[in-house]
Amino acid sequence: MKKKTIADLNRLHEIDGECRHLEKIAELLNWDAQTYLPPNGHVERAEQLALIEGLGHEKFTSSETGELLEAVADDENLSAIDKDLIRVLKRKYKQDIKLPLDFVSSCARAQGLSQAAWAKARQENNFAAFLPHLKTMLNFARKKAEYWGFTGNRAYDGLLDIYEPDMTADEVADVFVPLKERLSLLLKKIAAKPQPEAGFLTKHFPVAEQKRFCTELMQRLGFDVNRGRLDVSAHPFTCSLGAHDIRITTRYLKQNPLSSIFSTIHESGHAFYEMGLPDSLRGSSLADGASMAIHESQSRLWENVIGRSRSFWKFLLPVAQKFFPAQLGDVSLDDFYKAANQVQPSLIRTEADEVSYSLHVILRFELERSLFSGELAPEAVPEAWRQGMKDLLGIEPLSDAEGCLQDIHWSQGSFGYFPSYALGNLYGLQFREKLLEIIPDFEQQIERGDFAGIHEWLRTHIYSWGKRRSPKDLLQMVCEKKLSSKPFIDYIEAKYSNLYGL
Amino acid sequence: MKKKTIADLNRLHEIDGECRHLEKIAELLNWDAQTYLPPNGHVERAEQLALIEGLGHEKFTSSETGELLEAVADDENLSAIDKDLIRVLKRKYKQDIKLPLDFVSSCARAQGLSQAAWAKARQENNFAAFLPHLKTMLNFARKKAEYWGFTGNRAYDGLLDIYEPDMTADEVADVFVPLKERLSLLLKKIAAKPQPEAGFLTKHFPVAEQKRFCTELMQRLGFDVNRGRLDVSAHPFTCSLGAHDIRITTRYLKQNPLSSIFSTIHESGHAFYEMGLPDSLRGSSLADGASMAIHESQSRLWENVIGRSRSFWKFLLPVAQKFFPAQLGDVSLDDFYKAANQVQPSLIRTEADEVSYSLHVILRFELERSLFSGELAPEAVPEAWRQGMKDLLGIEPLSDAEGCLQDIHWSQGSFGYFPSYALGNLYGLQFREKLLEIIPDFEQQIERGDFAGIHEWLRTHIYSWGKRRSPKDLLQMVCEKKLSSKPFIDYIEAKYSNLYGL
Repeated sequence: MKKKTIADLNRLHEIDGECRHLEKIAELLNWDAQTYLPPNGHVERAEQLALIEGLGHEKFTSSETGELLEAVADDENLSAIDKDLIRVLKRKYKQDIKLPLDFVSSCARAQGLSQAAWAKARQENNFAAFLPHLKTMLNFARKKAEYWGFTGNRAYDGLLDIYEPDMTADEVADVFVPLKERLSLLLKKIAAKPQPEAGFLTKHFPVAEQKRFCTELMQRLGFDVNRGRLDVSAHPFTCSLGAHDIRITTRYLKQNPLSSIFSTIHESGHAFYEMGLPDSLRGSSLADGASMAIHESQSRLWENVIGRSRSFWKFLLPVAQKFFPAQLGDVSLDDFYKAANQVQPSLIRTEADEVSYSLHVILRFELERSLFSGELAPEAVPEAWRQGMKDLLGIEPLSDAEGCLQDIHWSQGSFGYFPSYALGNLYGLQFREKLLEIIPDFEQQIERGDFAGIHEWLRTHIYSWGKRRSPKDLLQMVCEKKLSSKPFIDYIEAKYSNLYGL
Repeated sequence: MKKKTIADLNRLHEIDGECRHLEKIAELLNWDAQTYLPPNGHVERAEQLALIEGLGHEKFTSSETGELLEAVADDENLSAIDKDLIRVLKRKYKQDIKLPLDFVSSCARAQGLSQAAWAKARQENNFAAFLPHLKTMLNFARKKAEYWGFTGNRAYDGLLDIYEPDMTADEVADVFVPLKERLSLLLKKIAAKPQPEAGFLTKHFPVAEQKRFCTELMQRLGFDVNRGRLDVSAHPFTCSLGAHDIRITTRYLKQNPLSSIFSTIHESGHAFYEMGLPDSLRGSSLADGASMAIHESQSRLWENVIGRSRSFWKFLLPVAQKFFPAQLGDVSLDDFYKAANQVQPSLIRTEADEVSYSLHVILRFELERSLFSGELAPEAVPEAWRQGMKDLLGIEPLSDAEGCLQDIHWSQGSFGYFPSYALGNLYGLQFREKLLEIIPDFEQQIERGDFAGIHEWLRTHIYSWGKRRSPKDLLQMVCEKKLSSKPFIDYIEAKYSNLYGL
């Protein structure tokens, strides 16, 4: 490589590294806002976020970055990783220079305030108090899409692209059509069948004990507590504050141990991805997931495919019984497995069963499309939500706290994020097909609580690539296939036909 | 005011405000490092700190700041607050421009690593593991003093100046001489007397219950939990992360409830100062304490003058008995008061009684002076510590964890900080003289758990001034006196002569 290219490349790495540090610092400000920040601290926190986001934006979109990217781009001697890095940075640069500094800071400030307002509004079941923030966040999102050139009806495509690069709303709709149809049908069939006995899951499970159990559980799955931690937040999430500082949160319900357990497994799945990123990408923009849906494929693979399987509970039930002898001591594996997989339309997405879960996501996707097409006014969201729940799941929330205020995403302006959850289910099941080919005793390993082989496969085929491949390319590389809902639908139908004797 | 002055002033406020935000963000990175950061996260955290400190330094020391400070300085129409702000900023600017950017970042990076190494070394009682960091921090401190023009023997004066502006090591030594003499004498007299019965304080006090009690206690003292919180750390501290985000920490010992109680009161005293800063100074460099010793005057006033008084326990003992009925239910007020004020030389500064406390500080001050004069090599610190403890307190630590590794300060490079603790005692007792003049029923108010009058006086005379006055000027303004050890010595001698029947 030419001397100048080497120098340019070093400087580019330096700029990228500093911007990543600023992103991680913003993540800490956010993590803290959702876990430990005193109630009155949110206004100043929003200012701090605005400043940090602004500094990062300023640094990255400087003309220097643009010139460096141009200067090194054509050098054929670049390493494969550097080629990928430059492609990713160029894409980001092209988008970011279109956003004025002032817009970025204001957006971060508004986000901080909106998120705090949402938490309060949700607690107080007060949609009216959140509405002005929702409008603000919608305007910022619309404006952002516009800056990027996604005008009019295409605004939502621009937002989707943040989370799932190169996927349009129409493409999402295409995979959601069969999903909606088949899951709704399955749900109806199940509704006609008797439910398993699950009373033991509504006994009293003390929070302190749940905490101890979840801490044990995450470590048994492979979570390294020297490189991360578990906290509590209103909405469970994973935060990557550094290569060796990956934090997850959960929430505890006294009379529902599965809530904290499945949240812990779900977030651990995200954490494994972050913890598994290779050292060669550390500190750069490639040290990230391929996309939000690929990230969700990991969390939902662990939560559902593994965590809700009979094999898994063969391993975990005896452990759980040690923590909760009075509550679970006399429960059999089959009874527990059936209870943990009870299908029953419910109001809260994060607590939903595997069958109805994607329908929750489809509702949000449809509402988001309507919000951005202008068909749905923000004021009308609560009513549209109730109607959508009735149509899709046959039940209706009595309060907005259990309805349109339940999720944090819109308060953060993360429109276009929700589809990732259902897409993650699809990617996850496509990966599972491959996993079963490579690890024929997949179920037996899970029964033994031995997850090393699964981690190894995921590390090699998913984690190690970081953000080097687009989701489409990664899927092609790993599965030699395009995105499809078939493996997911097949899996769901087989599992629940069996469970409910359909 | 001229139009240009107004514009310049606005810009100056803006720069100052952004630099303050960056300082608060660094504070969060530090707070988190001491409370929740996973063990392996320290290296990257140090990089994040280096970046933020560097950005703040770069922003503040830009030529623009210098020009603005020059431009507005002579305008006689400046408000009183702005005049004070500009004086404070000029002082800071004059110091900061002498420090190269690279030095500031490296220092912050080294601090982060050193602090983590100290925590580990202390836990493992391994001074050798901390020694290289101690040397690094000493070198940074020496270099910093040198940049400021404090060369040779005057290096330590330069460091003292960070915490107690315009006070030299000789001035500190002057007030410490009578303190050392009189406290040592009192300690000897007490040693000849029988100790009160204090066995009930070594019963088992469950940590969860101590936590609940301390949370109640801080609120009864006036801590607003909407604007702050209580956490746990190896070394109790107070952190001001924003005007409405003031966090304190404590630590819990199962068989010593007084440790967490007095730490909570001490840190609450710091928090009251921060919470009480007036809105007119918010977000600027004036929103700070006058000096570290003035800050300590607040924490030690609450911890000792109030918290260790008989009046205070008349109010608090019944509350404590509700939390710990089995441990304290049958303890009388006089027995508790005597036990809580037991004078007994001990190894840990933060757990020390009022009489021996300042001697712990004097030991550290003398060691620091020797370290900077070159008489003491860092390698010889453990031995010098043991000898110093023997000379001053008649006892010797068996481990470095209970000796020279007990305090966090040196690991953060905070040489020159320790004297503040003893100076804080002196300031605090001078303020108390004034408080007693204004509030004749001071003790009765405390007996009732009514702290509103005390807060009001402190707000008016101390908090509301923020950093607008130097410690010397503030003392002169409030007490019309110079710094003196007499009120402190008189108070200590009277209180403990009475308690021990001397």
